[in-house]
Amino acid sequence: MLSNNDLYKVLTGKREELPQPPVGYFRSESDKSPGAHGNNGGLMATSEPTATGGDQDPNSANLRPSTNYDAWMQGCTRKLGLKICGFLQKNNSLGEEGRIAGSLSERKNNLFSCDNSDRDARFQRTETDFSNMFARDLLPAKNGEEATMQFLLELVDILTNYVRKTFDRSTKVLDFHHPHQLLEGMEGFNLELSDQPESLEQILVDCRDTLKYGVRTGHPRFFNQLSTGLDIIGLAGEWLTSTANTNMFTYEIAPVFVLMEQLTLKKMREMIGWPSGEGDGIFSPGGAISNMYSVMIARYKYFPEVKTKGMSAAPRLVLFTSEHSHYSIKKAGAALGFGSENVVLLSTDERGRVIPADLEAKILDVKQKGYHPLFVNATAGSTVYGAFDPINEIADICEKYNMWLHVDGAWGGGLLMSRKHRHKFSGVERANSVTWNPHKMMGVPLQCSAILVREKGILAGCNSMCAGYLFQPDKQYDVSYDTGDKAIQCGRHVDIFKFWLMWKAKGTIGFEQHIDKCLDLSQYLYDKIRNREGYEMVFQGVPQHTNVCFWYIPPSLRGLEHNSEEYREKLHMVAPKIKAMMMESGTTMVGYQPQGQKVNFFRMVVSNPAALQSDIDFLIDEIERLGHDL
Amino acid sequence: MLSNNDLYKVLTGKREELPQPPVGYFRSESDKSPGAHGNNGGLMATSEPTATGGDQDPNSANLRPSTNYDAWMQGCTRKLGLKICGFLQKNNSLGEEGRIAGSLSERKNNLFSCDNSDRDARFQRTETDFSNMFARDLLPAKNGEEATMQFLLELVDILTNYVRKTFDRSTKVLDFHHPHQLLEGMEGFNLELSDQPESLEQILVDCRDTLKYGVRTGHPRFFNQLSTGLDIIGLAGEWLTSTANTNMFTYEIAPVFVLMEQLTLKKMREMIGWPSGEGDGIFSPGGAISNMYSVMIARYKYFPEVKTKGMSAAPRLVLFTSEHSHYSIKKAGAALGFGSENVVLLSTDERGRVIPADLEAKILDVKQKGYHPLFVNATAGSTVYGAFDPINEIADICEKYNMWLHVDGAWGGGLLMSRKHRHKFSGVERANSVTWNPHKMMGVPLQCSAILVREKGILAGCNSMCAGYLFQPDKQYDVSYDTGDKAIQCGRHVDIFKFWLMWKAKGTIGFEQHIDKCLDLSQYLYDKIRNREGYEMVFQGVPQHTNVCFWYIPPSLRGLEHNSEEYREKLHMVAPKIKAMMMESGTTMVGYQPQGQKVNFFRMVVSNPAALQSDIDFLIDEIERLGHDL
Repeated sequence: MLSNNDLYKVLTGKREELPQPPVGYFRSESDKSPGAHGNNGGLMATSEPTATGGDQDPNSANLRPSTNYDAWMQGCTRKLGLKICGFLQKNNSLGEEGRIAGSLSERKNNLFSCDNSDRDARFQRTETDFSNMFARDLLPAKNGEEATMQFLLELVDILTNYVRKTFDRSTKVLDFHHPHQLLEGMEGFNLELSDQPESLEQILVDCRDTLKYGVRTGHPRFFNQLSTGLDIIGLAGEWLTSTANTNMFTYEIAPVFVLMEQLTLKKMREMIGWPSGEGDGIFSPGGAISNMYSVMIARYKYFPEVKTKGMSAAPRLVLFTSEHSHYSIKKAGAALGFGSENVVLLSTDERGRVIPADLEAKILDVKQKGYHPLFVNATAGSTVYGAFDPINEIADICEKYNMWLHVDGAWGGGLLMSRKHRHKFSGVERANSVTWNPHKMMGVPLQCSAILVREKGILAGCNSMCAGYLFQPDKQYDVSYDTGDKAIQCGRHVDIFKFWLMWKAKGTIGFEQHIDKCLDLSQYLYDKIRNREGYEMVFQGVPQHTNVCFWYIPPSLRGLEHNSEEYREKLHMVAPKIKAMMMESGTTMVGYQPQGQKVNFFRMVVSNPAALQSDIDFLIDEIERLGHDL
Repeated sequence: MLSNNDLYKVLTGKREELPQPPVGYFRSESDKSPGAHGNNGGLMATSEPTATGGDQDPNSANLRPSTNYDAWMQGCTRKLGLKICGFLQKNNSLGEEGRIAGSLSERKNNLFSCDNSDRDARFQRTETDFSNMFARDLLPAKNGEEATMQFLLELVDILTNYVRKTFDRSTKVLDFHHPHQLLEGMEGFNLELSDQPESLEQILVDCRDTLKYGVRTGHPRFFNQLSTGLDIIGLAGEWLTSTANTNMFTYEIAPVFVLMEQLTLKKMREMIGWPSGEGDGIFSPGGAISNMYSVMIARYKYFPEVKTKGMSAAPRLVLFTSEHSHYSIKKAGAALGFGSENVVLLSTDERGRVIPADLEAKILDVKQKGYHPLFVNATAGSTVYGAFDPINEIADICEKYNMWLHVDGAWGGGLLMSRKHRHKFSGVERANSVTWNPHKMMGVPLQCSAILVREKGILAGCNSMCAGYLFQPDKQYDVSYDTGDKAIQCGRHVDIFKFWLMWKAKGTIGFEQHIDKCLDLSQYLYDKIRNREGYEMVFQGVPQHTNVCFWYIPPSLRGLEHNSEEYREKLHMVAPKIKAMMMESGTTMVGYQPQGQKVNFFRMVVSNPAALQSDIDFLIDEIERLGHDL
């Protein structure tokens, strides 16, 4: 009979002892040893204990611990960490109610054969020849457990090596190949699918190759997208999410995740500043869909009959958004039946911020034509300039004309977590809805985007169809937790867990530190290049977000007249050329684009928690190295 | 100096020898040993080789292998499997072109310190006290690598244990708790978020608790949803996907995944039967969104001006779908501005299949009112009955009236892979678009849904907005591979890899076997209960899909008049009561719902690859055990 101490040592290899239970924590006189928590129906452990210690009492047959004992157990579990946790919980659960297939003794048998004899051994990768093994040999195949564990551990070896390399500056960001090269098959990496199965060895090779020819978006020198970095907690969260493999539509099959979503959305609404964090919201598959939600619910708020009767039940409805805003507002306008011509683009100042007077003038123009101004989108962190529209002034206008105010904080949202930077969101509490993508500035793995709404119940009002096969009203639990019907999706991926876990692990304060650090880094870049020879800023002044937009002017262009067509044409080609060389050499990645009349320029953004000042320096060195002779 | 043989042994613990290189494969006279592939800049390995063998030559300084040598190396690598692969590739890559930060000697140093001394050791879980460690101690923290690896391995231990238990019939399917119980905090499982970080120990406990209070959707006795099961290859695919953490919108940052999507969609179109698999398509975040796409592109096909001018540019447009179809068609009608009243529901026969004559009558009715019949959805595998609408007859009508034919095969799609069952899709090649969710019948982890379109280019026509910051036309590669602009999303999660990997690992034939097995099991259930006392089938005849719909009639109701209101009322409560008890006891899960005038009945579906006949027997036993005394 093993004591808890023994088991703990067997399971973990640790040499610590379990804490002694306090006086009064014993279940009974026959149970004074902290190690003896029942004789397990007379079953003896099949392997030898690796150490001695702890009394043994074959007579204490009560498998259900007393409350006091429970409390002590819990204390042990917490103190001693995780490894023993599973055993204790399992053992405690032996007394649980509820009918379970298989006899009790069979369960206890499993318990011991699993936990005692080879719990750690199973975790060891052993020498496995996968060349004659196939998917059909894995679970649920009979006796497939060992193969399954070995396969998963082999894969984890590939993945953890990739994680290591991701953070290693001596590795490339990418190993670029053209589509036709990959399609032709790189060194046996064959993308074609066939009728017959491949061996597990080949599958593992394919996994390795998939990573090899991909892009390391977590690399400290990957600056190409608003979403960068590889957060380890977030990664762990995603691994767990895919292992749980469930669906957000009902509490029934995602109880924990549904509640996590509810609590997290409330926290986000509190940060927006809505009273007591009240309101509504949902996680959606990206900022474009979140923005689409905002347009849908604005329409439902003012013209609810459109839901049943269609757009013909409403006057011609017009949406307003910055010329610098994300294209998803226009896309939503097209998809939802407004028409992209009824999405009016607002002029911006030189920093890319909406000019409120232009908004008001355009609203009046639309009204004069007899159309109905419905909705204004204020961008909080524009995609290219990182600009924050003046929310308060826009909110004043929305109130005046009784319009819906949406704030697209897909990119900027993270700044709400920073006491230093959240003033850029001033007025956000006046918005009717807010898009906020934790998968951008906050480093949560893709996808993680929230649409937050001030008015409770309006999402369900807008979208519910009350499908009887999912949302039965006669379930045994409080069905207000079945939130699926307020989505435009039916099945919905669990996007919340990784975010919740990161929040737990970092605290609000950890996100704040990350945000502040990224903004500091971007200021460092700005200070470094704003007066540097060969650089010209696309707009003047410290950027509001981490976006630093600039032209690199190769020496050959520096003598040319800046307003000449020749100069513009040549400069337009500089960023694409440098970018192409960057990708070919695989050293770093940064985005570029034209904007309005402005020719191609670099848009540097910092959201990568791995980036340091030296990486910023590296980027600039690299641009100069590759662009010097253009 | 280590030979390849030595390294192989150190790295893998295997005792095999590398194959001898064939004559003529040596790079030079000084390099005759297959083990010596360069002296690595004079660096000596820091640990002792574990075995002898293979010559050593400190003078062969050429790090770039010749082509012959390359070929031999490749042979070795393939033959010997994966473990040495990383080392050889790494070593080969020393000669690669492209500037890489860090000196060559530094890289080689990393190489040896990493691969030689502790490559396997790193993979070992070691005794780690996470109670004083925090997220900030993980990568990219300085010296965070070891903590990161240990944390991830600890998590993997939790996950692999969960996987094991998932397939273990002696464990519960779920451990049910009401929302208020979980919100109050179960045994220290606190869902609230706070400002301060939690220790990594707490994070790992939270991970364990999250799984503990969730639902094991892969359990052999989980039949509650169309998506069930936990496919190990698919799981591996998702773990890799989240590690790669990239975005489908451009080839630039997802080259491999973009190509996999392209090739997989083509294979799926081939199975639909479109000539040469030509056409278009995209993976979307679920069947509801895929169906929404079909309505959008139908509208764009016939009334392209709606994209710019809105619904007022078109006549009143009407959509047709079965009264048994998924609610997402109606949801799409509401969202896209048609109005749910313009979604006409079609009558079905007693098996839930659309009656073509009813479709034609309703089209004529709509035309007579001056509206425009635009779109018909034929369901291939309805949600509740599993019914397949008669596609060919519907296609005839669509051709006659020049309408878009969409086939919603979200649930049925998998049957296209089965030679035995694909006849149920007869006529699908005449559809303009098809929804097919591999995450349902084919067991791919959530989310994995495709919208497939016969006409190439129409998705982009419908949705593109040509955002300059993402879809630059002046990239160095063929930008036709930047497929993001045809989506209604901007960022898009990588849903393809797990599916591609499963297809590789199983072959088409593996999917076929899975489909056939599930349909056999469902026939087994049907045969078992159709004449069994206490059961009544909701519809007669062998189900077309795996859906078996039935009432369980407790003994107390068996004497009652079946048409009486009392009987109906009592029977309506039977399924919810049994389901509630099932969930409380955690033994199995199956869905129920009313349908039209029919009171609550059970809908059993089989998509779980782990399910056996004994699990079907178990379900029936359980229904009778729990329902006998109602």
